[in-house]
Amino acid sequence: MPANAPKKVVLAYSGGLDTSIILKWLQTEYGCEVVTFTADLGQGEELDPARKKAELLGIAPENIFIEDLREEFVRDFVFPMFRANALYEGLYLLGTSIARPLISKRLVEIAAATGADAVAHGATGKGNDQVRFELSAYALNPDIKVIAPWREWDLTSRTKLLEFAEAHQIPIAKDKRGEAPFSVDANLLHTSSEGKVLEDPAEDAPDYVYQRTVAPEAAPDTPEYVEISFERGDATAINGEAMSPATILTKLNELGGKHGIGRLDFVENRFVGMKSRGIYETPGGTLLLEAHRGIEQITLDSGAGHLKDSIMPRYAELIYNGFWFSPEREMLQALIDESQKHVTGTVRLKLYKGSVRCVGRWSEHSLYSEAHVTFEDDAGAYDQKDAAGFIQLNALRLKLLAARDRRLKG
Amino acid sequence: MPANAPKKVVLAYSGGLDTSIILKWLQTEYGCEVVTFTADLGQGEELDPARKKAELLGIAPENIFIEDLREEFVRDFVFPMFRANALYEGLYLLGTSIARPLISKRLVEIAAATGADAVAHGATGKGNDQVRFELSAYALNPDIKVIAPWREWDLTSRTKLLEFAEAHQIPIAKDKRGEAPFSVDANLLHTSSEGKVLEDPAEDAPDYVYQRTVAPEAAPDTPEYVEISFERGDATAINGEAMSPATILTKLNELGGKHGIGRLDFVENRFVGMKSRGIYETPGGTLLLEAHRGIEQITLDSGAGHLKDSIMPRYAELIYNGFWFSPEREMLQALIDESQKHVTGTVRLKLYKGSVRCVGRWSEHSLYSEAHVTFEDDAGAYDQKDAAGFIQLNALRLKLLAARDRRLKG
Amino acid sequence: MPANAPKKVVLAYSGGLDTSIILKWLQTEYGCEVVTFTADLGQGEELDPARKKAELLGIAPENIFIEDLREEFVRDFVFPMFRANALYEGLYLLGTSIARPLISKRLVEIAAATGADAVAHGATGKGNDQVRFELSAYALNPDIKVIAPWREWDLTSRTKLLEFAEAHQIPIAKDKRGEAPFSVDANLLHTSSEGKVLEDPAEDAPDYVYQRTVAPEAAPDTPEYVEISFERGDATAINGEAMSPATILTKLNELGGKHGIGRLDFVENRFVGMKSRGIYETPGGTLLLEAHRGIEQITLDSGAGHLKDSIMPRYAELIYNGFWFSPEREMLQALIDESQKHVTGTVRLKLYKGSVRCVGRWSEHSLYSEAHVTFEDDAGAYDQKDAAGFIQLNALRLKLLAARDRRLKG
Amino acid sequence: MPANAPKKVVLAYSGGLDTSIILKWLQTEYGCEVVTFTADLGQGEELDPARKKAELLGIAPENIFIEDLREEFVRDFVFPMFRANALYEGLYLLGTSIARPLISKRLVEIAAATGADAVAHGATGKGNDQVRFELSAYALNPDIKVIAPWREWDLTSRTKLLEFAEAHQIPIAKDKRGEAPFSVDANLLHTSSEGKVLEDPAEDAPDYVYQRTVAPEAAPDTPEYVEISFERGDATAINGEAMSPATILTKLNELGGKHGIGRLDFVENRFVGMKSRGIYETPGGTLLLEAHRGIEQITLDSGAGHLKDSIMPRYAELIYNGFWFSPEREMLQALIDESQKHVTGTVRLKLYKGSVRCVGRWSEHSLYSEAHVTFEDDAGAYDQKDAAGFIQLNALRLKLLAARDRRLKG
Repeated sequence: MPANAPKKVVLAYSGGLDTSIILKWLQTEYGCEVVTFTADLGQGEELDPARKKAELLGIAPENIFIEDLREEFVRDFVFPMFRANALYEGLYLLGTSIARPLISKRLVEIAAATGADAVAHGATGKGNDQVRFELSAYALNPDIKVIAPWREWDLTSRTKLLEFAEAHQIPIAKDKRGEAPFSVDANLLHTSSEGKVLEDPAEDAPDYVYQRTVAPEAAPDTPEYVEISFERGDATAINGEAMSPATILTKLNELGGKHGIGRLDFVENRFVGMKSRGIYETPGGTLLLEAHRGIEQITLDSGAGHLKDSIMPRYAELIYNGFWFSPEREMLQALIDESQKHVTGTVRLKLYKGSVRCVGRWSEHSLYSEAHVTFEDDAGAYDQKDAAGFIQLNALRLKLLAARDRRLKG
Repeated sequence: MPANAPKKVVLAYSGGLDTSIILKWLQTEYGCEVVTFTADLGQGEELDPARKKAELLGIAPENIFIEDLREEFVRDFVFPMFRANALYEGLYLLGTSIARPLISKRLVEIAAATGADAVAHGATGKGNDQVRFELSAYALNPDIKVIAPWREWDLTSRTKLLEFAEAHQIPIAKDKRGEAPFSVDANLLHTSSEGKVLEDPAEDAPDYVYQRTVAPEAAPDTPEYVEISFERGDATAINGEAMSPATILTKLNELGGKHGIGRLDFVENRFVGMKSRGIYETPGGTLLLEAHRGIEQITLDSGAGHLKDSIMPRYAELIYNGFWFSPEREMLQALIDESQKHVTGTVRLKLYKGSVRCVGRWSEHSLYSEAHVTFEDDAGAYDQKDAAGFIQLNALRLKLLAARDRRLKG
Repeated sequence: MPANAPKKVVLAYSGGLDTSIILKWLQTEYGCEVVTFTADLGQGEELDPARKKAELLGIAPENIFIEDLREEFVRDFVFPMFRANALYEGLYLLGTSIARPLISKRLVEIAAATGADAVAHGATGKGNDQVRFELSAYALNPDIKVIAPWREWDLTSRTKLLEFAEAHQIPIAKDKRGEAPFSVDANLLHTSSEGKVLEDPAEDAPDYVYQRTVAPEAAPDTPEYVEISFERGDATAINGEAMSPATILTKLNELGGKHGIGRLDFVENRFVGMKSRGIYETPGGTLLLEAHRGIEQITLDSGAGHLKDSIMPRYAELIYNGFWFSPEREMLQALIDESQKHVTGTVRLKLYKGSVRCVGRWSEHSLYSEAHVTFEDDAGAYDQKDAAGFIQLNALRLKLLAARDRRLKG
Repeated sequence: MPANAPKKVVLAYSGGLDTSIILKWLQTEYGCEVVTFTADLGQGEELDPARKKAELLGIAPENIFIEDLREEFVRDFVFPMFRANALYEGLYLLGTSIARPLISKRLVEIAAATGADAVAHGATGKGNDQVRFELSAYALNPDIKVIAPWREWDLTSRTKLLEFAEAHQIPIAKDKRGEAPFSVDANLLHTSSEGKVLEDPAEDAPDYVYQRTVAPEAAPDTPEYVEISFERGDATAINGEAMSPATILTKLNELGGKHGIGRLDFVENRFVGMKSRGIYETPGGTLLLEAHRGIEQITLDSGAGHLKDSIMPRYAELIYNGFWFSPEREMLQALIDESQKHVTGTVRLKLYKGSVRCVGRWSEHSLYSEAHVTFEDDAGAYDQKDAAGFIQLNALRLKLLAARDRRLKG
């Protein structure tokens, strides 16, 4: 056993086969005490079996932590991110990325509460999630140890994993004997699928990959309209009914999923340097983005909006790369939050067979001035002659450039 | 007549009632010679009537210029812009903005060829188009005069305009007697509608506003797949058939329009300082953007892609504001074009009832490495242990920050 | 008199000849009541004469406002700007730009307090100051009228101005009979000089232009060291002595001026589209910038610092262009302020014959870790082997690019 | 010996003790053939001794490469970088960073020419140079092996190194027996010193650290003026005399060094995550930056200049981090180079006791228009009334914001 082996480890534990193997491996490899942490982030699985499985694997009841984090997840992570209209590489709503910091935060907090000196996760050495888990953990506790068994152990094939499981009396569900045709991550914001049958980016994803949205072809033949209300940049009500953050996202997921909205077939650049292909389903988040953009259209000033747009790619990249708990993400958040003071009002969306469109928006905070824009007589709100001076001064440097070109050629 | 009154003016002339009134007003107000320029940018109207109308209004045949600019428009303006995945304020494909510089360029060139000292346009004093026309004109000829009758004359009501038309024997089509319910601009890239019945952003646009796309509800019940090929960032073929730029966009418009794709209900920030609401239809452009993003996903490096993403909002803003012919737009174009050397390959899109999704992409220039990303044995392409060092060094500064916080609190 | 002529105007009044002429012109042109506002921003002139002059010109005592704004100027404008290390076009410390918003703020507030419907300033129609005054005024009161006599009147030559002054019994100091050889603006942050003898950017500025700094050649032959302490990004003490913001800047001006520091000969791009040449003297500000950078070097994280650096040019441009009171400046300020929480500590500067260099810095908030960086044995603080993995993953995309190039050529 | 041990290695060889130890270590550790590459980048050392030393250590003559790269270094690396006015973290002229890519390029090329499968360098595992060497090498040859002995071997103390040297008959100069008090890197652009006596950032650097510049106090008591001419952004002549790139930089180093210009005491953020303190001397580069900015002031448009300024921090960071040979650096270079077409003209600098100031600049490509900016009658070049419209439209959105605030409060 290495000299600096962990003595007590908090493991991000799903109750599934893989993290059960990790649990046992930590015990046998390091002889350390294991604390399990299982969070409900809206992945749609019951948590009770995780408790039973942990107990079965010998975890003491006081070392089993099971928590419903859905409200915290949406309120403190998803909503702040949506204030930025964040999209990674133009299209991806960051559903996996945004969940990792919260899990790490609780791992580190539970470590402090239970006197553990290490945390462990089940992410592989090829992906982004290891980075996100570990950067978050180190940012919150610089002395914490992080154990990433997939980078350490020699269980490098499905066969070896199953052998290890059998050797340690870990129950294996029948359908886990064969290899899953793809790998899934889910939380209240999205479901992502990747690997194996999805590895050829030229091939359309098979229909059975999609789990949270009906096919657009199978969606209702009649459009549905929904109104989302915002206060200071965050959604607060659906169709006039006030709801908690997690409730709103749950409801939007139902609506979006029913209409086949939020599917994304995507090849992205991982932080670790390679391209990968993923299938994402973000039904509620897709509605939320469209609605937030809609309410910003009338309540956000152009200077504020253009500044937000220009820093958004960096903000999204930071979250994707795992830097949620970093000074620069917090600085950008301060900038974004400052912009949202008046992003209050209501938007109407039209949902239909795979797409969502904002078709109306209104607000007491609106900056839209019919008096200024109207084709009709504007009663002096705007003096068209001002435009001449505006253009002349904007043109001045262009004229000086053109005059130089002419002079040098002439 | 003012001392610096124009002697000869090239007018951007559509053949419609408004620019016919301008034509006559220029003649009467300034006593100047008028040259008409009518361009086919794919707006879908015949140009012959414009020639006849100009002749009727007394323009000499040698002063009537009618040109088909569709290929130049798509090749030298639309395609370069799409290399950037340009979207104004997150959503607008800049269909009006991108057409103005080309019209100004031809106006200035025709002025030089005909010895005119001025150009004139029919844009109002409240909009962006006046800015775009004039900045382009001044950037190409610093001494050109620009006449913007809408900012000068006193024909400030529909009634006065019609009286002027009647007084000057300008034919008025029957359906122009009443006010149009909204205002339209069209070219090969898009149709925009704004004003009047569209002025309340809370109200859904009536269905008769849409001119180039069927309603998604009326689109075919069966999805259609289309393959678009790119070379160095520009579309070159549809379903394997090579086509000219304008032919490609025309064909994509048919496909997108048939499936109800590319509708946008949008409140935007005008350069002149007010918000306005527009309805845009960009069927072909919407397909093109999705396809271009798809091919970039596998052929563009992350460093290149993220840099492009970060400067895109500024690039789009420049085009929107009328700075196509500016050093900074050309600098950004040089950056963007440098990135497109390997953006070559083919994308498959799925079109269905209002939405388009990229569902496959392949290329000899692909950077996607199944060997690296695979969940299967990667035969040593990637050493997972490298990730530990990668994370440690990325985490180092975060650890130092956390240690400081602890030290100062402790 | 125009229908919408102002009834009561608050004039930014220096007590000099030009603003005295404006005062009288406002009275005669508009027949309006004039309120004078004279601020001490550290320009180094006594304010009492301004009061006397105003009285002499018939301003009622209750309409004469004279205020010492030095502390507010430094605390709420200069210091927040220096948190950003703001430089316009790489070199200019924005000494004029940052004073204008405060003057406008007080003009608007005094207008509200006195029931005035307009404000007036003495900036010309060619410069940036008119823009800064007016944008600030409109941002604080959308209905305020702004009178800019230089853009309106016909007093377009020195002769006409003097004639007007004589005709209205405005006293003319003897040295004002001839034209000043250049134009000066001054406040606690800087002195700027421009125009006339300075208009040829090829010609060195004559020595008599400089007013606040000795020539480096005339500075002491012995270097002087000074220590500046910061708390949360703002200077709070010099050589260990705590001082108020304005006192600190005053003291730094003395030190810098004595050593010939902070002279800038500069050709800049005005917002209104032309280039102009200015001579700036910012002795204290130059020290402050060097010191602030020095303390940030050890207390600011790289992620935070690089983000600040990247937005700085836009922040500086906003201030230069007059957008201090804009949402986007406030958003950027929120970002910058968020970064300064730990910018606390002390810096030692060396001043010598025209230049200043930071030669030492220390702080309890330091992130500098001798344990990590040392060439000596680091006792395990840093594992050099981590660097291998760090490099491999940073290199991965570059390798994939190189492999593609090889493949396509091969 | 590891299975994938290198067979033939090209070593970046200075001829000094450390790289001689590496040479021998490569031979003994891997039993591989060693090729030495010694470049003259202007570090100011003779190269002949390196050849003799290599021969002495048993390198075959055909495996000894000694090259004068000074012109290529300045022309293809230093000058392109100076077109950007690149400064890392506001102050550092990147003298070390910019030399590494060229060395790597030649290493990889010599490897190809000699059939070597690996390259080796003498950078430690804590610094940036390892990253710069290796990213460049991998970007140019994805299959090259890179050997970094300092990360691999167990010669972790001075004593062990000297023992290894003695055991292998490597001559040790007497003054190398003791430890150097700091570590030095030099090339034509700069000298950097770091480590040991410099490790406490609170302590002023001792005077003996400076090697290339006299102390300002010891510089001439009389200012010196120098004129630098530029063509398309690159310096081409000094005081009217055309010179090659390396000759120009050499001459500027003499001038700057004589006047004590270009010293920097700096704490920077390394890419590998820690802060370090360095003393930099960049005499010629400091003059070049000031001159380049000066000529840009009159020849570069504001739109172009502001865009350059805004991307400069990212460009500098890329070079600092070792990404010279990356798509994004090349994209930014394309943008920068596009801006330099008219950056042609001459600048006059004043050098005096540690500081340099631009005091004059002129060019046929100048955009400075005395006609526009003059305080005198401008003969109609500029209509001051245009400013009113310019301000009104820039203010419009601010007025709408202020009106909203008033409405919501009212």
